[in-house]
Amino acid sequence: MNSAPLEVFTAFAADKWIDDEANYQWRVAARPVGNVVPTDFTWSVTDIPQPSEGEVLLKTHYLGLAPVMRFYMQGTGAAREAVLQPGDVIHGRGVAQVIKSRHPDWHEGEIVQGQMGWQTYKLSKMTEQEKFFRMPQNGLPAALGTGALGMTGLSAHAGLFACGDPKEGDQMVLSGAAGGVGSIVSQIAANVAGCNVIGIAGGPEKCRFILDHGCSQAIDYKSEDIGSNLDERCPQGIDLYFDNVGGETLEACLERLRLGSRVVLCGSISEYTRDPPFKLSNYTRVRATETRMQGFFVYNHLHRWHKVMDELAGWIHEGKLQPIQDVEQGFQHMPRALANLYYGGNVGKQCCSVRGEPTEWL
Amino acid sequence: MNSAPLEVFTAFAADKWIDDEANYQWRVAARPVGNVVPTDFTWSVTDIPQPSEGEVLLKTHYLGLAPVMRFYMQGTGAAREAVLQPGDVIHGRGVAQVIKSRHPDWHEGEIVQGQMGWQTYKLSKMTEQEKFFRMPQNGLPAALGTGALGMTGLSAHAGLFACGDPKEGDQMVLSGAAGGVGSIVSQIAANVAGCNVIGIAGGPEKCRFILDHGCSQAIDYKSEDIGSNLDERCPQGIDLYFDNVGGETLEACLERLRLGSRVVLCGSISEYTRDPPFKLSNYTRVRATETRMQGFFVYNHLHRWHKVMDELAGWIHEGKLQPIQDVEQGFQHMPRALANLYYGGNVGKQCCSVRGEPTEWL
Repeated sequence: MNSAPLEVFTAFAADKWIDDEANYQWRVAARPVGNVVPTDFTWSVTDIPQPSEGEVLLKTHYLGLAPVMRFYMQGTGAAREAVLQPGDVIHGRGVAQVIKSRHPDWHEGEIVQGQMGWQTYKLSKMTEQEKFFRMPQNGLPAALGTGALGMTGLSAHAGLFACGDPKEGDQMVLSGAAGGVGSIVSQIAANVAGCNVIGIAGGPEKCRFILDHGCSQAIDYKSEDIGSNLDERCPQGIDLYFDNVGGETLEACLERLRLGSRVVLCGSISEYTRDPPFKLSNYTRVRATETRMQGFFVYNHLHRWHKVMDELAGWIHEGKLQPIQDVEQGFQHMPRALANLYYGGNVGKQCCSVRGEPTEWL
Repeated sequence: MNSAPLEVFTAFAADKWIDDEANYQWRVAARPVGNVVPTDFTWSVTDIPQPSEGEVLLKTHYLGLAPVMRFYMQGTGAAREAVLQPGDVIHGRGVAQVIKSRHPDWHEGEIVQGQMGWQTYKLSKMTEQEKFFRMPQNGLPAALGTGALGMTGLSAHAGLFACGDPKEGDQMVLSGAAGGVGSIVSQIAANVAGCNVIGIAGGPEKCRFILDHGCSQAIDYKSEDIGSNLDERCPQGIDLYFDNVGGETLEACLERLRLGSRVVLCGSISEYTRDPPFKLSNYTRVRATETRMQGFFVYNHLHRWHKVMDELAGWIHEGKLQPIQDVEQGFQHMPRALANLYYGGNVGKQCCSVRGEPTEWL
């Protein structure tokens, strides 16, 4: 994996800024190899477009960052989004306001979330492919649309409940526990499903964080051996493993599955920049323990959207779920925010306040 | 893998024979490394035991062979049976007759199946651990208790229906299609569940066999490339993969899964004698396609026994399932029969007629 310290991204952004006089965009310059580097991105400034009949003009306020964005840049057609070519605006979901509308179903002033792309304005026909939803009027900040009340929340909820079949008292292990999806899963698994959650995260800060957000125990994978810690902390084995990282962590958990356990494959960030790819040496444990290993892909769960969002909002109001966002300030720092994800720098959902507005603002 | 041609087992058995004057047994001599060799087995002759209060004396008529037996000999505690030490009688299920009984629930003359061990007589308390069942009076040969009307049938039925969730019209792929479990799965998947079954087997004889037993297409893994054949024969991808072999075959199928597909991990015989163990390079396909990969272990499905046996017997009577047994003649050839399994020599369920009786006899 090649690597570039975050400072190079800071320097890269130093001459860039946005205003409301133009549409600022980040486009694919080159296919990333390993983690992203500044030369993978092109900064672009164009006129703010005007809607034709059937179109709306959206103004971006918050953008979410997700590991899949590197795949978009690599042109692998990940996550069923259109395959990007060099020169294309990078895909990314965000929270925006309809500022002009010539579309019968969407009205000026409405706050929505959907496929915005890495840009400060977007002209949209609001197609199904873009998966736009109105932000509900539930007293919660619209910025949560990039996290707990967006695809991240749906991933956590559907991954846990629809795929993981959690049972009260389950010994659960959760990797990536301090991340966007993980920090929601840990809380709803503990506070709603009644699981006993051992979280895995990198570094003492994240481990303290996850102990405050649903996990009863924390393993720091950067300084502790996962396998021996699991042996010690759940000697009876694992009922449910929610996997956000893949690789050796998955292997260590498979080795300790109980009969009839479940594994949710939600993400495998430890493998995305690895070359050659990781090879799993003990998948036959799944057979021996009659485990159900369920792959999870959030777009298959869109039909649950409104019910899930209502439940998540309810749990936030009840104090069972504290949504955590790690906010990058300023659209010009989007590349740094993506690199940060791959360095494991974020605590909670990595997002970007496009104009540096507080996330309570909207 | 070390290997010994079957001829060495034939020679090994040449001076051995059984009668009804003693209890003949095969015991563990050494832990197998790779496939079994004659020096892994000890031939033992002891007195026929007499039952005390609460015990029965069983006379073995048929024994089934299964890949797991090599694990028993290795002392790995596979399949929740007692861990064997050198000198112990090898585990194995069989069909037997109660010839003396001092047990209130089991009567002289009854035909049963259960854990007999590799021996011609057994003294038993008929414990739950031994999993004895009476053979039903359904007009079918009791010898089927080693196959379609025994654990093999339960594996096929529960693996397919309880784990595989087959849907009419599913494009299914089945490896080990000519084997004990496979030859049942192929027929009930096609004739009961309405799946379109592509079978994978080794050699032209087995491929002809599976085309006569449920498979609409056959791939000979010994002479054909599995991946390119699957590309050609099911270009739309795989809805259900029933895996009896693991390894590269599993990898080729994972690469071609459709969204929402299912994989049943029933066996992985290709890996049992491999050193170093096989490593799976593409398990992340399970995540990307939101596949449910379900490990299967037959002893978790014992509660289904009577219902499953009734259904299987019904399908046999209706002509939807033709039970196929590959019969070794004579108890002295049990080691050869086990080696044959690992050489892929059997067509249908490998079993042994202990006294060379026809399998229709009992």
